[in-house]
Formats: sequence, structure tokens, C-alpha cells
Amino acid sequence: MRLISFQREGSTRIGLVELEAGRVVDLQAVEPRLPRDMADFVAGGEASLNAALEAAEQAPAEARPALEEVSVLAPLPQPTRNVVCVGKNYAAHAGEFSGTAGSASGVSGDLPEYPIFFTKAPTAVSGPGQPIPAHLDPTESVDYEGELAVVIGRGGRGIPAAEAFDHVFGYTIVNDVTSRTLQKRHTQWFLGKSLDGFCPMGPLLVTADELSELDTVEVTTHVNGERRQAGRLDDLIFDIPTLIETLSAGMTLQPGDIIATGTPEGVGAGFDPPRYLRSGDRVEVHVSGIGTLRNPVE
Amino acid sequence: MRLISFQREGSTRIGLVELEAGRVVDLQAVEPRLPRDMADFVAGGEASLNAALEAAEQAPAEARPALEEVSVLAPLPQPTRNVVCVGKNYAAHAGEFSGTAGSASGVSGDLPEYPIFFTKAPTAVSGPGQPIPAHLDPTESVDYEGELAVVIGRGGRGIPAAEAFDHVFGYTIVNDVTSRTLQKRHTQWFLGKSLDGFCPMGPLLVTADELSELDTVEVTTHVNGERRQAGRLDDLIFDIPTLIETLSAGMTLQPGDIIATGTPEGVGAGFDPPRYLRSGDRVEVHVSGIGTLRNPVE
Repeated sequence: MRLISFQREGSTRIGLVELEAGRVVDLQAVEPRLPRDMADFVAGGEASLNAALEAAEQAPAEARPALEEVSVLAPLPQPTRNVVCVGKNYAAHAGEFSGTAGSASGVSGDLPEYPIFFTKAPTAVSGPGQPIPAHLDPTESVDYEGELAVVIGRGGRGIPAAEAFDHVFGYTIVNDVTSRTLQKRHTQWFLGKSLDGFCPMGPLLVTADELSELDTVEVTTHVNGERRQAGRLDDLIFDIPTLIETLSAGMTLQPGDIIATGTPEGVGAGFDPPRYLRSGDRVEVHVSGIGTLRNPVE
Repeated sequence: MRLISFQREGSTRIGLVELEAGRVVDLQAVEPRLPRDMADFVAGGEASLNAALEAAEQAPAEARPALEEVSVLAPLPQPTRNVVCVGKNYAAHAGEFSGTAGSASGVSGDLPEYPIFFTKAPTAVSGPGQPIPAHLDPTESVDYEGELAVVIGRGGRGIPAAEAFDHVFGYTIVNDVTSRTLQKRHTQWFLGKSLDGFCPMGPLLVTADELSELDTVEVTTHVNGERRQAGRLDDLIFDIPTLIETLSAGMTLQPGDIIATGTPEGVGAGFDPPRYLRSGDRVEVHVSGIGTLRNPVE
């Protein structure tokens, strides 16, 4: 199932996307009792999914607008806590930070022994097509980081790796936009990663069953049509079950939690001189099986 | 004005504390239209405060339970995004990390040039009297960090230091409980600071007017009655206006945001050997003008 959050007739709704028809089933138009908030929908688990399928079957034409007629938001437009991200989780990307340009990030090039977790503020989240406000970084060091993100379905603490996928609702795409100078300056990465609009997300939230062969999923990022980043999920240093087990060992995960799994080689800071984003650039993050997240830079 | 969040008759409410009488005005019992959620109350600003004062004047005896009869929660029991914290913001504390024991935290002893911001998960927040679940840290390196925390009233981006106090609703107390081993192991501090129950907060949220002479405010932490930490707010490397200006430069602050301002010298990791918290310990963080946050360790 492919889901979006979208704006229609003045309210935020959840839609079931029919890719081939280019249409979206406006779930609330069919079944007003279905949650409008994706985190609530996700918390409903199987019951939500079954209700959505039933609504889609009954949906009249007026509840099936064309995709291009609706304003698509991030699948979780206002997360109720910070987005968790993983640093240096592709070996080749970790290596990028050992060179001259990498020092701009304040990150060493060593492979991490344990996952590196940091967070992005919910106010950073923006939707597909929304401009990345690079002008908010006075140091002009705005970088892209295309990533696959996991959306937690069933919460819990002490989730063993072997059961981790039972807690995954689905997947989406995140661009972990970063001010490299602020990331370095403040030593902890939170602020340099949390400027408004620095967390484009979406457009689709695909349910876990749609991405059955995770290992072969590819993450690529293009800037102005030029391929900059490419990686495959089997290159992750810490795979998704390990991330969930490590995070949840002492911290309760909640439905709707978002875990961005790390970015592959090819960030702007990895070039010498660095190739940071500038006003007018177009960034596209593609994840096979999910889709493409496109954002202009302003 | 001194406010608490508390549980009464099965629901969360906001109370206006009458310290001398040892009573709390149950604001929702007097005026059911007042928000029950502290973040909403805070967002209401002056209007909330005036309505609360009016309710207190009219409150009948049955809406004025004794403080010890109610179950006090953290003033913001479920923050809608992560608690922002500041690392190494007292010079003497920053120095603690240059010695042998300090290396356990993975932090250098240098004074920071810029504020160090990291976050704690909302699921870590607990109330006064709630046990700190040290057993969640398998590495047995649980440390205390007593802190004054700022609660943002009016949100905004690009707040200049000179106007920062216009955006402060009030102050509370936070114990930034930390697993030193996890803090070091994961290099970014988020996970080691976000275990469930690792962010005791409260009991009081005092409005900004109650703490007029901020510079002389003292933060002290006792463990089992022994004084471990002591600092004064005029020892902050980055004062509250600087923190608000720096955070809000590119990131919109929101009503109810919590900024813990850093901890003074005397953490357990600063001793050689380190003096970490153990089951049965009692931790008390006192901030002059606000009160005392007491939590047992389990």
C-alpha cells in the first residue's frame, strides 16, 4: 500500500495512492472516522490498513482526485518528536570524511563501532516540492543527504533484532539536509541539521510488504540532474534490525517514529572543494521501490 | 505564578500552586475551558495567566486540594518534541572532562566556542518522585546533571538576544540523567541521554517574573544528602539570551519548547573513580527560586 498525507479542501488527509491510475483515494472523504493524522493511522496498524482498503473499494469518483490535483505533504507532516537519524552508516560515506573537505563537517573518517544517533527537529520537516531554504544557513554550507527512512508501526522497548520488522510500518524518503559549518561549529549535530525546511520527506509512505527485498534497494541522489550519491541497503554498516534493537534497548519506540538510516557516499562535503547547494539547485532523492523526493533550493 | 501539571480524578490538569497554604488550585475544576495541556496553556500567554488568576480567586475549597493529595507530574509531561539541552555550559564543568574519569564521557575538556546543542527524547521525561530506572543502562554508568530549564512562551525564528526574554514563559528544573558509556559509545549524545525516565522534570514551572535576578540563581545537586554539584547562573558560558538567539537563528522555536541550560561542576564522571548512580540512591536538584526536584534511583 502506498500512502500520502495531503491537503484538500482546507484540511490534512490521508490518501491511498493508485499509481497506475495517477489517482489518490481520499480516505476521509469515504470514511470520515479514519484518522486524518498519519501517526494515528500508523498506530492503528492492521485495522487502519484494512479500513483503508475497504474505503478504497467503495470510493466514488469524487473521492478519487488526480494526484496532481492535490497538495502532497510529508507523510508525517508534524512528527510528535524529533526525527532520529543515523550518521556514517555506509562505509564508503564514512570514508568521505577522512579527506580535506570532510574536515568541514567535524566528523572523523573512521568506521563507527556503534551506530551514531542524532535528531532533527520536527519543525525541519517539509514536503515534496517545498523549497529548501538554504538562505537560513549564513555559512553557505548546505549539503544534501538522501536516505531511506523507517516508520515505526508498533512501538516498544527491548525489541530484539529478530523481531524488529514486526515493528516496521513502512518506509519513506528523507533528505537529511545539513549545514556543514553549523554541524561542525556546535560539535553535536542537532542544530546544523534542524534548520527550518532541512528535512524534506516523502512523497510516499509505502507499507513494509511493498519493499520485500530490502537488501537490493538503492538510494540515489541527483543535483541538477547529475548523479551525486548512490548506495544499496546491503551496504549499511548497521542494518535496520540492528538500529531498532539498539535504539529500543532503553528507549521506548512509538508508532510514527521516523528513523532515517544514513546516507551513501557522494555528499557535497566529500568533494574538494565541497559542492554545497545553492539557490536554484534541484535535488532529487530516489529510493527504488518507493519513489523520488524532489525539492528546489531557494 | 507557580504552576504544576498533576493527575486528579483520572485526568491531567494544570494547577496554580499556593506555596504558603500548601494547596493547589485545580484550574480545570474552576474553569473547564482552560487548557489541560501545559503546552497549550503556555501558548495562550498572558490570556492563560489572567484566566488562571481569575480562576484562583473564584476557586471553592473543593477545587483547592492539598499539594500532598495530588500526584504531581512533570510540568510538560509529554513534550511534543525533544528537550533541547546544552553541553558543557559552565566553565568548571567543561574542565571536569579533561581528566581520566572525564574520558569516560567521550567529551574533551576544552571550553566550547559555540553552544553545544543536543536533544533528549520526550519518552525520557518523568515527574518528581518517579524512579530513575538506572537498570536500563547495562553499562552501569548512570550520571546526574542538575539544570535550570527555560520554557519558551512565544515562539519565533531569528529572535535577537536583546528580545529573548520576551519569549521566555518561565523556568523549571531538569535532571539530564546520562549513561556515560552510551554517550561515548554512540559519539553523538542523543541515545545515552534518552533512556526512558532519564529526564526527570519539575515539580514547578515558575513564570519568568518570579525569577527576576537570574544571575544569582544557584543550581545544586545532592546525592544521598551529599552536595555534589553547585553553580550560579552567572557562571554560564552562554547565557539564556545567547542560547535563544543561537537556536532560533534558523530553527523556529515553539511555545512549550524546553531548553535545559547546562550543568555545573560535580557530575559523577568528574570523580576518579567515577561516582555513578546506583539503585537506592536519592538525587535532589535544587534551583533557588524554583524548588527541588527529587528522584530515587531504581
